[in-house]
Amino acid sequence: MIRRYTFGKPFPTEAVVKELPYETDALPFFSIEDNRLSLPLENDIPVYGLGEQVRGINKRGWLYVSNATDDPNHLEHTHSLYGAHNFLLIGASHPFGVFIDYPGTLTFDIGYTRRDQMYIQPSQWDLDIYIIESPDDRLVSIVRLFRQLIGKSYIPPKWAFGYGQSRWGYQNEADIRKVAKGHREAGIPLDAIYMDIDYMVRYEDFTVSEEKFPDLPTLVQDMKSQGIHLVPIIDAGVKIEEGYSVYEEGVQNNYFCKEEDGTDFVGAVWPGRAHFPDMLNPKARRWFGLKYKYLLDMGIDGFWNDMNEPAIFYSEKRLQKVLDQVADLKGQNLDLNKNNEMLGLVNTLANNPEDYRSFYHEPGNGWEKVRHDKVHNLYGFNMTRAAGEAFDELEPDKRILMFSRSSYIGMHRYGGIWQGDNLSWWSHLLLNIKMMPSLNMCGFLYTGADLGGFGADTTEDLLLRWLQFGIFTPLMRNHSAMGTREQEAYQFDNMEALKNTIKLRYCLLPYLYSEYMKAALTDDMMFRPLAFDYPQDPFASKVEDQLLLGDGLMLCPVYQQNASGRYVYLPEDMLLITASGPDDIRFREMSAGHHYIEASLTEVVFFLRRGHLLPLAPAAESVKDLDPSHLTLIGYLNGPCTYTLYDDDGISKDFDLDKHAEPITVSPDGSVKYSGSRRLTFDAKIFKALPSL
Amino acid sequence: MIRRYTFGKPFPTEAVVKELPYETDALPFFSIEDNRLSLPLENDIPVYGLGEQVRGINKRGWLYVSNATDDPNHLEHTHSLYGAHNFLLIGASHPFGVFIDYPGTLTFDIGYTRRDQMYIQPSQWDLDIYIIESPDDRLVSIVRLFRQLIGKSYIPPKWAFGYGQSRWGYQNEADIRKVAKGHREAGIPLDAIYMDIDYMVRYEDFTVSEEKFPDLPTLVQDMKSQGIHLVPIIDAGVKIEEGYSVYEEGVQNNYFCKEEDGTDFVGAVWPGRAHFPDMLNPKARRWFGLKYKYLLDMGIDGFWNDMNEPAIFYSEKRLQKVLDQVADLKGQNLDLNKNNEMLGLVNTLANNPEDYRSFYHEPGNGWEKVRHDKVHNLYGFNMTRAAGEAFDELEPDKRILMFSRSSYIGMHRYGGIWQGDNLSWWSHLLLNIKMMPSLNMCGFLYTGADLGGFGADTTEDLLLRWLQFGIFTPLMRNHSAMGTREQEAYQFDNMEALKNTIKLRYCLLPYLYSEYMKAALTDDMMFRPLAFDYPQDPFASKVEDQLLLGDGLMLCPVYQQNASGRYVYLPEDMLLITASGPDDIRFREMSAGHHYIEASLTEVVFFLRRGHLLPLAPAAESVKDLDPSHLTLIGYLNGPCTYTLYDDDGISKDFDLDKHAEPITVSPDGSVKYSGSRRLTFDAKIFKALPSL
Repeated sequence: MIRRYTFGKPFPTEAVVKELPYETDALPFFSIEDNRLSLPLENDIPVYGLGEQVRGINKRGWLYVSNATDDPNHLEHTHSLYGAHNFLLIGASHPFGVFIDYPGTLTFDIGYTRRDQMYIQPSQWDLDIYIIESPDDRLVSIVRLFRQLIGKSYIPPKWAFGYGQSRWGYQNEADIRKVAKGHREAGIPLDAIYMDIDYMVRYEDFTVSEEKFPDLPTLVQDMKSQGIHLVPIIDAGVKIEEGYSVYEEGVQNNYFCKEEDGTDFVGAVWPGRAHFPDMLNPKARRWFGLKYKYLLDMGIDGFWNDMNEPAIFYSEKRLQKVLDQVADLKGQNLDLNKNNEMLGLVNTLANNPEDYRSFYHEPGNGWEKVRHDKVHNLYGFNMTRAAGEAFDELEPDKRILMFSRSSYIGMHRYGGIWQGDNLSWWSHLLLNIKMMPSLNMCGFLYTGADLGGFGADTTEDLLLRWLQFGIFTPLMRNHSAMGTREQEAYQFDNMEALKNTIKLRYCLLPYLYSEYMKAALTDDMMFRPLAFDYPQDPFASKVEDQLLLGDGLMLCPVYQQNASGRYVYLPEDMLLITASGPDDIRFREMSAGHHYIEASLTEVVFFLRRGHLLPLAPAAESVKDLDPSHLTLIGYLNGPCTYTLYDDDGISKDFDLDKHAEPITVSPDGSVKYSGSRRLTFDAKIFKALPSL
Repeated sequence: MIRRYTFGKPFPTEAVVKELPYETDALPFFSIEDNRLSLPLENDIPVYGLGEQVRGINKRGWLYVSNATDDPNHLEHTHSLYGAHNFLLIGASHPFGVFIDYPGTLTFDIGYTRRDQMYIQPSQWDLDIYIIESPDDRLVSIVRLFRQLIGKSYIPPKWAFGYGQSRWGYQNEADIRKVAKGHREAGIPLDAIYMDIDYMVRYEDFTVSEEKFPDLPTLVQDMKSQGIHLVPIIDAGVKIEEGYSVYEEGVQNNYFCKEEDGTDFVGAVWPGRAHFPDMLNPKARRWFGLKYKYLLDMGIDGFWNDMNEPAIFYSEKRLQKVLDQVADLKGQNLDLNKNNEMLGLVNTLANNPEDYRSFYHEPGNGWEKVRHDKVHNLYGFNMTRAAGEAFDELEPDKRILMFSRSSYIGMHRYGGIWQGDNLSWWSHLLLNIKMMPSLNMCGFLYTGADLGGFGADTTEDLLLRWLQFGIFTPLMRNHSAMGTREQEAYQFDNMEALKNTIKLRYCLLPYLYSEYMKAALTDDMMFRPLAFDYPQDPFASKVEDQLLLGDGLMLCPVYQQNASGRYVYLPEDMLLITASGPDDIRFREMSAGHHYIEASLTEVVFFLRRGHLLPLAPAAESVKDLDPSHLTLIGYLNGPCTYTLYDDDGISKDFDLDKHAEPITVSPDGSVKYSGSRRLTFDAKIFKALPSL
């Protein structure tokens, strides 16, 4: 049951796809005091949700602000990351979900001011509140209802489930070829190389530097013949430069965001002074989206949208004022206050709230002119929607890879997200783990973090442990920042371990792709906290570092340096799988309860749940080389057991579950029943589970 | 066995107190290649040491730089904190210690560049290397040998083991009285209130603002009558101001650090432009030390030395240059590079290495003029030594509380340290835990972190969990920064839980004080990693979040938000102690191995080891009110067991172990034998341990 409560005049965010009637009774559960929603929190009631945010799976104990922000340090006391995902799930005995459809700044005080109280405060009371309950009082059911409300999740091409390599710093064709060669020569699988901002002419969107890439179409084809896709970045800001067609068209057609006086707003990003396309204006959005054609025509079939909070290094107006103020300090004695003033002037140039209040959108549809800050969290969504709508127009039956940095609920229909500019920290590996189910709740299924860490220097062991988790995330990309240690898998002494880990990803692909597609097509969560599947287990909601993945797996990544194992909690008997590569996979039955399990640096550990199957394929160099015709079925059974395998051509948009999902049934004696349409052969490796109590 | 190897012409740091002969054979264990020491690291050999540093108890897997730095963000990728503690302990089958006595920049690459290799690189090869081995191959023995080399650790007055409250922001007498009253009215124990930089006149050392504190001596006495000591901060930099006597005397007598041309170096700190006393010059040091008399004469009996890396906000020369360069950017288009240039100019003003290379010390003793960067890490040490030597002169038989931010090994003889300007992060609670044994190895026994976290906003649960660990650290201080949430214990809803936790500290004081004094007087570690006491247990060296404390305790703090328990590893049978306050202490025998133990938010959990005793006193409002005449003895025994209780007057420097340490013997039947000099009565609460195998 979903009920909608409307306050004021909400901006039509298009987050939801169902038009629900307004309720006229009082808002349930919450009281409204001091302009904020208030909800008592009983002791130990977990609160889930908020998608891309800091801290735990259980969000209790911090203050979170939905205000899309380019902040490269995801610290414990950070309040805002790149996205705004205003969905919460209150895990009380009668659980319920709440979605606040509001595109401005929204504060969630979840036991921060008072441990036993939640407060939700919008910057303005123009919003829709959706209250979601399920007759079965199950968390998964509430999430499914919510996901049905917000629409089906984006599905990328199958090759986007392969391993990708990225670095801010790859400059030219030679660099790209070197990365491809580095992987292929070492036998490390690879499906994508990402092109960061340096491929462009002076950071101009929809340009390719001829000097650096004299013949991109040929390079794209060369790479594709090796199973490698090139994925360029697209930035939100458009450089101000006479003669640059995107700039000139935007100015001529009034496609850029404007200041109050009607002049185009000037903020700076990579190229310096830039204009920002009015992504909320349907005409401007279509114009910007169709620009992707320039790269599609060169054979490109994937993109990542960046800087679309939008990040602003400075506004031209503020910069000149600040430079004057700093100059005035000359000769003065800067004591504590004056020194802080100087640092403050310079360090608040970027992403300044006042700047976000100084420009406007013209979304039409009855909304003449909307100040940016009131719809701030929709910018990245609509930049990605621009691309998604254009792809539908330009390539109606081809899946194009698309993921974004900034997002709002609703954007999940047009693309995935990566989890932003993280750091090479062990704690960010843990953050990556914790974010997965929270993002899934909000519809973002195609997601993952920069493996090895983007900023700061990685270490071999961190990269290896991170990859051991990354082999399970739909987006599996190694990415690092300019100036940091080079972290391609072939850069390290123990390259074999890194390679064997990445190979495991390809063995897992039949499972991962099946589970992704089923989750996307049935509005399910691919990654779930333990409490979602074991609601009767009082300890399950305490587990913050294990995840259920799809039908039958439980993940328990090692995320601590120098650890050679970890503690795990098993809500029921499970089969421990320990793998150091495709040729070294071991199994051990373990009973329900608490355990310490060994996991040396080169070993991935995870569990297969009782009564479930895991299909494994032989490893491959890329998705296109994957041979799905022979599967090894791992089972932990005490009776016949069925796995639903999904497969398709990986590129067209024919997503019919009935057509592509086929049951495979295995009996405890290892016999396999499959009467599907494909030519499949099987090995079965069956472990007998005790009957459940 | 300690061997000394000398390279070049080492600066006499006075870190060690024993003059050892130079060895003439080749340096053992290490090879010297490419100007650096090199040592292969076998798989899983732990490396301990480095005192105040980031990351684990086992330091493997990162690059650490000894370069005293005022960095308020203790991040995973931070290389340098405030201290320089160049002692390592290599936990191989034949373990050994290495101390590099070098006061300049020193880099420890401990498996960062290559997982299986350690590299140590000094910025210059003028240094002493001490190699320490013990015939019994025990880690504790090696540490004791090292500690004997560097001299006895500082001992504070007993009241300094009480609870202290601090905040950057207490402005005046009214604020201090409010804090005292807040605690006393709520019944929260308190022994000290710290005065941060605002008590001074314009941040001038050895001044007290008459406006804010019209009669400090009377306030000091009023507070003392309540059992509360006031502890003012002293900063390293001396404000440049005509008429300010400390400034004028320093200039007249050439006591300040000078530039190459002989003029006094101008750097800025809180007051803006300042000079830096030449702490390495014995005359200047004595002069500065005797200045503390100004406050001692007002009844003050404790200090904290801050900003003594020394932190420099900017040098006057660099500032003017930077302001010009920033002004030149006016009107330009700042693209990525230029924008970074601007941010870089301003954000590298503070603590700039070039500035540290631009001024000089005159240490005498054959060293005419030494450039600061070459002896940088000695500054905080010698500022604290200035005070320590002056206290010996001014108050020869009275202990004065002294702890410092910056330090070098050797400073541990003159004062303790606090663990710097941390943040209200759960990970910094864990960092606090991990630093304790590392600091103890290097002689720093009187230490602790800012409980609740200094920077950023705390939460009630973080403060509570942090206090639950803080009750065990010798320095137990709640401290927070201006602009952050107020975090005195009486600010929170669940004040009772905070109060009961703090009370437990006082119950533990007979044990904590005894263990501190015995560790200090016998060169022992009060906090030890598990592997130090259980060298035969292969799992012990993997445990990063449990500590042995003194004779008989094992700590297992809860450091994760929303946790209601944690995993622990018991190397042998132990007695679990669960306490939510002095009136609610519960016990449970637990067998060796891995366990999950419950610990609700209000419960401290820790263990008593088998064959050990824990004396507990009744709680008190302050150390002076503590009644040590009646002790409850908790035992976990299977035979008679002796605890050595140390007590003294808490203020004089009569530290004779023979005189003050007395055995108390308890039998499994609960009978107590004590024939010491004090009037003591006992309760015994005995749990029977199984005989050891």
